[in-house]
Amino acid sequence: MNSKTPLYQTIADAIKARIDAGEYKPGEKIPPIRQLTQSFGVTKATVHKAFERLKHQGLIENKVGSGSYVRFPDKIHPVPGAFDFRTDYLGEHYFPYQQPQAIFNALFDVEKARALAPTPVEGDPELRQVLSRHYHLPAERTLIISGAQQGLDLVSKVFAAKISESILFEDPTYPGAIGLFRARHFVPLEKDGPDLEQLDRRLSDRIRLFYTMPSVHNPTGISYSVEKKQAVARRAQRHGFFIIEDDYLGELKPGAPRLVDMAPDRTIHIKSFAQTTLAGIRLGLMVVPEDLLARFVFAKYSSDIASSGLLQKFMREFFKQGLYGRHIEKVRKQVNRRRSRLQAVIAQCPDCAFDPGQSGYSLWLRNANHLQLAKPPWCQGEEFSFAPAFKSFFRLAFMHMQDEVFDQSLAYLHKCLGGAKE
Amino acid sequence: MNSKTPLYQTIADAIKARIDAGEYKPGEKIPPIRQLTQSFGVTKATVHKAFERLKHQGLIENKVGSGSYVRFPDKIHPVPGAFDFRTDYLGEHYFPYQQPQAIFNALFDVEKARALAPTPVEGDPELRQVLSRHYHLPAERTLIISGAQQGLDLVSKVFAAKISESILFEDPTYPGAIGLFRARHFVPLEKDGPDLEQLDRRLSDRIRLFYTMPSVHNPTGISYSVEKKQAVARRAQRHGFFIIEDDYLGELKPGAPRLVDMAPDRTIHIKSFAQTTLAGIRLGLMVVPEDLLARFVFAKYSSDIASSGLLQKFMREFFKQGLYGRHIEKVRKQVNRRRSRLQAVIAQCPDCAFDPGQSGYSLWLRNANHLQLAKPPWCQGEEFSFAPAFKSFFRLAFMHMQDEVFDQSLAYLHKCLGGAKE
Repeated sequence: MNSKTPLYQTIADAIKARIDAGEYKPGEKIPPIRQLTQSFGVTKATVHKAFERLKHQGLIENKVGSGSYVRFPDKIHPVPGAFDFRTDYLGEHYFPYQQPQAIFNALFDVEKARALAPTPVEGDPELRQVLSRHYHLPAERTLIISGAQQGLDLVSKVFAAKISESILFEDPTYPGAIGLFRARHFVPLEKDGPDLEQLDRRLSDRIRLFYTMPSVHNPTGISYSVEKKQAVARRAQRHGFFIIEDDYLGELKPGAPRLVDMAPDRTIHIKSFAQTTLAGIRLGLMVVPEDLLARFVFAKYSSDIASSGLLQKFMREFFKQGLYGRHIEKVRKQVNRRRSRLQAVIAQCPDCAFDPGQSGYSLWLRNANHLQLAKPPWCQGEEFSFAPAFKSFFRLAFMHMQDEVFDQSLAYLHKCLGGAKE
Repeated sequence: MNSKTPLYQTIADAIKARIDAGEYKPGEKIPPIRQLTQSFGVTKATVHKAFERLKHQGLIENKVGSGSYVRFPDKIHPVPGAFDFRTDYLGEHYFPYQQPQAIFNALFDVEKARALAPTPVEGDPELRQVLSRHYHLPAERTLIISGAQQGLDLVSKVFAAKISESILFEDPTYPGAIGLFRARHFVPLEKDGPDLEQLDRRLSDRIRLFYTMPSVHNPTGISYSVEKKQAVARRAQRHGFFIIEDDYLGELKPGAPRLVDMAPDRTIHIKSFAQTTLAGIRLGLMVVPEDLLARFVFAKYSSDIASSGLLQKFMREFFKQGLYGRHIEKVRKQVNRRRSRLQAVIAQCPDCAFDPGQSGYSLWLRNANHLQLAKPPWCQGEEFSFAPAFKSFFRLAFMHMQDEVFDQSLAYLHKCLGGAKE
């Protein structure tokens, strides 16, 4: 205990640690002040002050006559300010909306009301074929899902029992997965993939799943080396665990070998289109090992029967007409352009460091000053990790803003991070 | 044990009963033959023959070198024959597809790529307003969901622990709910709602939820009387359980009082649009009690972030322009017309009986002969209930077929059920 830290703050930190660790879960009641007074060996007033602190931080809330409860995270309601470096979706202005308009028009012309008919649970058969050709994946084990988050939710259904005990994560990792799975086991990431020694240490009999983003990792932007991918694939075969390969933005690393090819019977491959097209479409695909296929189909049926037939037909045409491929080509160029400009600005800022080998829609950087803003317009490292070391990191997502706002945002960043005069 | 039943059949029935009761779950391994030989006190050959029988019935399957497993139900893959009385969705020909075409066109004209932007977790704010006005529901507690099945899935997430122990169902009920919740507790339905004496007997401390379709019940087509609704609402308040009011086809009983109005702090109200518009759209709404709102929003986020922004905008316009209301008016007339024709045919068939006060897209009837076809073109009573009494019931859904096919289907039914010569 740091002697300069007030006692109530120490108590508040201890309670926060329990909330972070999932010991006190969102919506759950926190032990009453009386009880905490005893267990911490402090006065009622101190615990009360700690509670006030936690309330101020938005971590807990009071219910009249009923005590204090852990609040549900605000993360799910990002309220972006003027400069939004939080949102890691593609901005709408990058999307050629005339194409979907033409496709929907043609769909209703040709298919009439059939355009709105339901599809089988697994998805529109032709879309599955089209996607399997495009991505070189087996159509018969490909399911259409309502985005990558649903893919994770289906995994949590299929591996229901004690999943938080049996799933290993990269550290840092995607917060949506941490929340869904109540993550407990982590392996540190290096620049080319997981620390293999640490990985081996964490692979006990209880680990049945390893959640990974080997191409364009979120938030770090790194990609695994081929050797590390092979090492992970070998371990999955040997230890009998399943890999969840979240192919978040694999399109930005075309041609890179995938875990789903190296260990097809051990890999659950998930691909979102929310990242590459627009987030209001909400479609993705999922490839699952043969042995698990029936379970995943059942889980999908239980979740929402099937994804929208209309949106699937749109996506089918968007791929079939080659529009998706051309769109990605353009996005890739825009990403490179913005990334260069952003990196040039950050390079002028003291105490900021980043790995230049990153890809994706964001830049992951470290600020040695532990810059703490009340409402930072970016995601703080602690949203992606429980490890204290990541408190000095943050993620700047840069593909959502309009060009004009992006220019202003760069100027704002430069000022905010104390960049050298240009 | 009936002495005429072969021993292997008795063993097969006993195993089937365990599968039906959820003791052996889909995807799970069945105890090996050796073990069952001991527990039933019969020879290996008898158990083997019972397994063959179950395999033939499609209830279990072998995996090489690994034993026998409970199969996932085929129900989720209905393969309708020429005459499809199974599908209880509205046929596409009832839907004015020119209207969605025009709406999508206008959306892209006006909103451009913003039409494909994501919405908040709770749904498009304007759609929530529009729906709450249309249905007289509180907008601030209304969530947009991807269909009614997702609504049930969210309930299963929010009430995660031991839900199968704590949820009460009507008997018979919707199979999607039975499967999702591994239903165990049932209350028999009468013509005007649940048998209240039986209901009271089943309301123990462990019952935290009651799943009901009080307006246009599936599969029976009945609706609760106002008195029975009030009785259920009172019991929810008194015993502190939550009602899941699945407003499956409430539009066909306009003006009927709802549980969500009688017990707003005790009712989770779910409304699907898949039944009233077309099933490929996959949207619905859900109203939840204030106290549970944050949990449901979190569950929705964990499930699929949010429902498609594009489809929500379409639905918003469809309601705003009054098109939904007019469409329902037409559907109501068509339902009445087809129901009258179907009931007239069934009335000519011996040993068939039905309650004439039904509503909805299907007719629930009893055939005293226990008519058993190998692949009946309708849903058998046992899909909706574990009670043996329902084996002689079936549900004829009649709103999916084209007019011409409907005519032929009526003639087929007439023949198949031994109807009198006209």
